[in-house]
Amino acid sequence: MHMAIRQERQPASAQAIDTVRQALGAMLGNRLVSSLAVRQQHANTLTWIDNQAPDLVVYPQTTEEVSAIVKLCAAHDVPVVPFGTGTSFEGHVNAPFGGVSVDTSMMKGIIAVHAEDLDCVIEPGVTRKMLNEHLRDVGLFFPIDPGADASLGGMTATRASGTNAVRYGTMKDNVLALKVVLPNGEVMTTSRRAKKSSAGYDLTRLFVGSEGTLGLITEITLKLQGIPEAISAGVCPFPSVKAACDATILTIQSGLPVARIELLDALQVRACNLYSKLTLPETPMLFVEFHGTDEGVKEQSERFGEIAKELGGGPFDWATRAEDRTRLWQARHDVYWASMGLRPGAKGVSTDVCVPISRLSECIEETQADIATSGLIAPIVGHVGDGNFHVLPLVDMENDEEVKAAKTFVERLVQRALAMEGTCTGEHGVGQGKMKYLEQEHGAEALAMMRALKLAIDPQNLMNPGKIVTL
Amino acid sequence: MHMAIRQERQPASAQAIDTVRQALGAMLGNRLVSSLAVRQQHANTLTWIDNQAPDLVVYPQTTEEVSAIVKLCAAHDVPVVPFGTGTSFEGHVNAPFGGVSVDTSMMKGIIAVHAEDLDCVIEPGVTRKMLNEHLRDVGLFFPIDPGADASLGGMTATRASGTNAVRYGTMKDNVLALKVVLPNGEVMTTSRRAKKSSAGYDLTRLFVGSEGTLGLITEITLKLQGIPEAISAGVCPFPSVKAACDATILTIQSGLPVARIELLDALQVRACNLYSKLTLPETPMLFVEFHGTDEGVKEQSERFGEIAKELGGGPFDWATRAEDRTRLWQARHDVYWASMGLRPGAKGVSTDVCVPISRLSECIEETQADIATSGLIAPIVGHVGDGNFHVLPLVDMENDEEVKAAKTFVERLVQRALAMEGTCTGEHGVGQGKMKYLEQEHGAEALAMMRALKLAIDPQNLMNPGKIVTL
Repeated sequence: MHMAIRQERQPASAQAIDTVRQALGAMLGNRLVSSLAVRQQHANTLTWIDNQAPDLVVYPQTTEEVSAIVKLCAAHDVPVVPFGTGTSFEGHVNAPFGGVSVDTSMMKGIIAVHAEDLDCVIEPGVTRKMLNEHLRDVGLFFPIDPGADASLGGMTATRASGTNAVRYGTMKDNVLALKVVLPNGEVMTTSRRAKKSSAGYDLTRLFVGSEGTLGLITEITLKLQGIPEAISAGVCPFPSVKAACDATILTIQSGLPVARIELLDALQVRACNLYSKLTLPETPMLFVEFHGTDEGVKEQSERFGEIAKELGGGPFDWATRAEDRTRLWQARHDVYWASMGLRPGAKGVSTDVCVPISRLSECIEETQADIATSGLIAPIVGHVGDGNFHVLPLVDMENDEEVKAAKTFVERLVQRALAMEGTCTGEHGVGQGKMKYLEQEHGAEALAMMRALKLAIDPQNLMNPGKIVTL
Repeated sequence: MHMAIRQERQPASAQAIDTVRQALGAMLGNRLVSSLAVRQQHANTLTWIDNQAPDLVVYPQTTEEVSAIVKLCAAHDVPVVPFGTGTSFEGHVNAPFGGVSVDTSMMKGIIAVHAEDLDCVIEPGVTRKMLNEHLRDVGLFFPIDPGADASLGGMTATRASGTNAVRYGTMKDNVLALKVVLPNGEVMTTSRRAKKSSAGYDLTRLFVGSEGTLGLITEITLKLQGIPEAISAGVCPFPSVKAACDATILTIQSGLPVARIELLDALQVRACNLYSKLTLPETPMLFVEFHGTDEGVKEQSERFGEIAKELGGGPFDWATRAEDRTRLWQARHDVYWASMGLRPGAKGVSTDVCVPISRLSECIEETQADIATSGLIAPIVGHVGDGNFHVLPLVDMENDEEVKAAKTFVERLVQRALAMEGTCTGEHGVGQGKMKYLEQEHGAEALAMMRALKLAIDPQNLMNPGKIVTL
């Protein structure tokens, strides 16, 4: 369909980097950094993917500066790698062809909060916690919570979701509009602030989840929610993963508007008990939260308790006091650190898949059997309302055989999910680590379409090359 | 960025049409029709846009047939115009360059209903009422309701929404995956059945709202909802449009999960009283519905009543009996016919815009003043929870001056919405009628991006040419 402009990207030449370095230095002064430590930190990776440092790191403060940086890089064919907080898992911020890492941490402006419209306009470096602190006084909050205090630019770019997605959706459902610097340095807005529109192709959703490969996000209009009048949350043990998943299905089918419903497998519960000083029974456990009115959350919590009982689970121990809820969710958010405590010195290699919820218990139980057979230590935690779960193999990275065992385990995990009509990643994104699965997941035609889109928008393969698709 | 492959599309040659006619006849037998009446019916338009009939109409039964049709048309450069039920407003199904109208009404298969996953897989000719009848026995429903009993293929292609969108979102939020026949006849699937995924570019959302210009949808995976245990609905009068809009804002800010919240202006209420034999006070009126448990909808209805009272509205007269609700929503759905009754013989030229809800009352009130000044009869009804409203000028199409007045009124309406950070269409789509506003709404860069996408996917400009963007 297209001219193959470039089959494989080459790293920028030393001369090009030097030219760009001088021009950026003149433009940005000490907001251009090229020390090895900072460059390596900007190529942060949380798996066995090698750290591939950019040549330069810049800290722009405005859309105009980003535009000038991208134009300069385009003129000298130097790759541009967007950087938020570096909390992505799959090598999203690595620079396999070198180039310039554009760190958005100095773009933390909250440009506007429109309380009546339940939206806000922010810069990409704003983190979710920072935004929610800002919003608290006006009684609003932004619901998407991937665990890490990620930047909203990064969350948008990776189509993040997390614990609240079962009720509030993912980033794709909560971004109204974007301002983007395109690969040629032009500035584009994708949509307007109206809550819905049928005016043409959905450019917003094209950029949500594009992982910086189509452009660099410099402004985000987000939907907001009113802080619920009442919140109830609690834990509920189950005799099996299947019983917990069945309770989840029944809860959602019943129309209970559950705000979070998180599964921890028995090993994960043990890890949490040790780390967070809890005394939960070490059996599959649901962490559940409801948002609504006082009456509403009480009714919903009681209903959920009945459903759990029906499935052999319970008792559902729930509370509405903020401090009790905070302790609970702090423990949930600390599962990564809790898991690491199971094997000090090991690296936690987090991965995620997502399947239709009807296949979820089967997928998790097969995965647990695989973990046992492989001799790995790998707790499981899942956003079960979405059919999404994480496995965290704790790997001794010095032990080649163990690394190999973990890699083949992840391979089998993805194959298992794909065989169940699932996806190779529910929320972590493709980055470098999941690229090899895209053709199998989507088919050759869809992969060709993704390539055609990348080529139409970024024919030079300038923006975050080596991620999602190769040209 | 691209070669301009074709600046303007030409109609297919008579010879090409003839060749395609013969081949299609051999393939489809009497499922190829070329009578004038059927061709004109397939170029149905509900505004002043001229009827532009296709050369041929075909009724495929399978994806394979659609693929063969598109391949044949591509080989002879004959345009392909997808057709659902022809209920679109802006000339979406017109054939300005002739070609083949592909009517999906013989593709009405409900391929699968996955009750545990709350999804289903259907063919594009299934209409929303047909789907909901099919689902009733399993306790599920599909919430998007644009009023007309449109095909789900058409609803997907136009990013439809309607009365339930305030709670359940639009088609963009309720399509999980699509099977699409691309402009080269290849068959592509956009995603999988998992409830969420971060695996690459969002091809699903690229096709939702693309109005048949990028490909023809032959299979749709839709999210479903459990039928609520209880529904309450009622009407609530307000002293002014502003009071009604303020009540809507407060309702949403309070986190009341309103399922529908519809504004009728005083003229629209009068029309409904006449047509549907109601006795509502002829003042701005909200039609409101809540979904939930018995306790929940009672609590929500009472809360809404308090909010309405606070804003000088009320009393909120609500009911949970199915027959009362049905009468109410039947009246709401009949507003088009009710409005037509205000001026028998006139044509109702429906248009829609959408603005941030904080600007909604201002936008509606200015529009009402404009209607009065213009001497038009034009009731207003709005999905006010989304900031979206419809105006229906009743136009004597034989009266050139009146047609001109209505056209300039619509022009001013769109300019008013755009000046308030709104969109030229909240849910009707672009078609032919709203193309001229896209550059102003989105900016030159975004329009260039839409063109680049169209060109990358459909370089021949084969699929529904002359809609959304020109090449």
